[in-house]
Amino acid sequence: MILMKKLTLELTNRSYPIYIGSGLLAKPDWVSEHIKSKQVLIVTNTVVAPLYLDRLAAQLSGYTTEHLLLPDGEQFKTIASAVAIFDKLLACRFSRNATLIALGGGVIGDLGGFAAACYQRGIPFIQIPTTLLAQVDSSVGGKTGVNHALGKNMIGAFHQPQCVITDTDTLQTLDDRQLSAGLAEVIKYGLIRDYEFFTWLEQNIAALLAKDKDVLAYAIERSCRNKAEIVSEDELESGIRATLNLGHTFGHAIETGMGYGEYLHGEAVAIGICQAADLSQRLGWLNPADVERIIALLKLAKLPTTPPASLDAGRFLEGMSLDKKNVDGNIRVVLLEKIGRASLPTPVRLDVLEDTLRCYGRH
Amino acid sequence: MILMKKLTLELTNRSYPIYIGSGLLAKPDWVSEHIKSKQVLIVTNTVVAPLYLDRLAAQLSGYTTEHLLLPDGEQFKTIASAVAIFDKLLACRFSRNATLIALGGGVIGDLGGFAAACYQRGIPFIQIPTTLLAQVDSSVGGKTGVNHALGKNMIGAFHQPQCVITDTDTLQTLDDRQLSAGLAEVIKYGLIRDYEFFTWLEQNIAALLAKDKDVLAYAIERSCRNKAEIVSEDELESGIRATLNLGHTFGHAIETGMGYGEYLHGEAVAIGICQAADLSQRLGWLNPADVERIIALLKLAKLPTTPPASLDAGRFLEGMSLDKKNVDGNIRVVLLEKIGRASLPTPVRLDVLEDTLRCYGRH
Repeated sequence: MILMKKLTLELTNRSYPIYIGSGLLAKPDWVSEHIKSKQVLIVTNTVVAPLYLDRLAAQLSGYTTEHLLLPDGEQFKTIASAVAIFDKLLACRFSRNATLIALGGGVIGDLGGFAAACYQRGIPFIQIPTTLLAQVDSSVGGKTGVNHALGKNMIGAFHQPQCVITDTDTLQTLDDRQLSAGLAEVIKYGLIRDYEFFTWLEQNIAALLAKDKDVLAYAIERSCRNKAEIVSEDELESGIRATLNLGHTFGHAIETGMGYGEYLHGEAVAIGICQAADLSQRLGWLNPADVERIIALLKLAKLPTTPPASLDAGRFLEGMSLDKKNVDGNIRVVLLEKIGRASLPTPVRLDVLEDTLRCYGRH
Repeated sequence: MILMKKLTLELTNRSYPIYIGSGLLAKPDWVSEHIKSKQVLIVTNTVVAPLYLDRLAAQLSGYTTEHLLLPDGEQFKTIASAVAIFDKLLACRFSRNATLIALGGGVIGDLGGFAAACYQRGIPFIQIPTTLLAQVDSSVGGKTGVNHALGKNMIGAFHQPQCVITDTDTLQTLDDRQLSAGLAEVIKYGLIRDYEFFTWLEQNIAALLAKDKDVLAYAIERSCRNKAEIVSEDELESGIRATLNLGHTFGHAIETGMGYGEYLHGEAVAIGICQAADLSQRLGWLNPADVERIIALLKLAKLPTTPPASLDAGRFLEGMSLDKKNVDGNIRVVLLEKIGRASLPTPVRLDVLEDTLRCYGRH
């Protein structure tokens, strides 16, 4: 039996569904509804392809289907990889009505979405996220892009998918480190706008790590619901959408500073959330007990909570100075007013920020 | 005295002005109105910079202004050049509210606009076209992009500028070949939707080639008016906007097939218009006298009207098979029903298309 939930991301120009359920890859009702032309390119990577490419391709027998395998890892979310996708689309002579399917984690989704945004000025694409992080966050909302040596996600586009297909069965093959990385973004939703979900996560963290199917499905659905509500309200991030970046200003500095792929995105975000919480406390917004509670949950989720020793305050500031939320070069950070409520990006006094960077987690 | 016309490109989400006049580069009323942040990057090329960069920079003394010089020519409208712009923006640590100014011809405008579309998922940009072709066509309407070895403009984005500043004085330094190339797109407007303008062009072609300021200004304004009307109606080219591609399916095959930069874009379009007219006649849509009349005007404008001998029908078809107007790989061409009226992209019988490719202009 296949149980499926359908959420809708409501946008002014075009709304689209997020399907969440067990076994969806083998139940292709979505294919004919969301693929409107004969040409399909599946972009995936060398880890995901052996697990799920055949299962997906079997649903596409009526189409001219090609696929492209990329190496796995954040270090391959580059313009060069986007060019490899353009080369493939052009070698196949695919038209502007071709559909690109991104089958994989956040790297494949962001990269495939960006290539789809730029190929012939935009072709339809479908997100099939296979990691928890992609299922709860990156596949939803139309942010696509690639990294630059000097800054994470610096080149990109807003390009909404036709639909998101989340087959929760794919999590059963996910390794523990990737599962924890996804939980960082799940916990984030609790922190920024859903206190009740945060307490639920405190109670259910063991079941999530044990990959309990029902508990995972609930966490995914509630995360997607939170994300969809925010994106509906502010598709192009002129306001509230920026709260989804809690921990990301610090986190991106870690990813860029340590070299892409050294930390998983979710791991860097987990550390960044702790730093944002510490900074919020220093500014008098958050009490010490809540900071401890946040760190405790991230630790239970088996996530790192202290910054890399080799990344000193100066290099953090260098990385943070290139964040997309900055205005005219001034660093702005999403902070926590309390558990369940985030601030919009806020300019912070440099000396207080430096205190966090120098003191938090440095023992 | 500065005479200025202001047209408005009306769009659903955001309308913007097109200023056309003599001396606008030295009269920066538009600066404070359209640049909303401190950071400005001017992208230009090594031919335009010695002529106009200082004049523009002098208007920007209140801003943090940087510039990037690229080599001149269609062969540099590449992803590598876009990456050079990203590198510069990041090296300057420019924020998402920075403004990019594209100062130059169609290559600089398309490339700069594309980089602006992708940098941090989109920053504001301003078009300052300095060639006739850019002033009458490419700077207006938000199509941006770069070429791929396999196909012209295959990678790109729709990204509308904040405004277009057309200083008609810049045409006085334009060489004759570039001027003629621009006239190909001017004549195109007459052909696709403005018969009266076509007859005006027949009467005024000598004055245009002699760079008569008033006559040029009128041609630019009327061209922009035509373009703005079409784009307002169909910003993302789901219909009528495709008629602006008259001659372009053939023309792009020439540019790609001969190597970018060998023919100027306007030259390739002129040849393509002749081929489209020939094809329209073979299909019984256009009479022979009108085909002759079209070719005669293009010749008077000192434009090439026959295809390159080295590009045979087979290589034309190869290039045309990668056009953005194609659907599921089938070639579609904009045709002429009469002078002043174009068809939407139309699938054509391959044998008739081959007749045009093999016979027209092949002596």
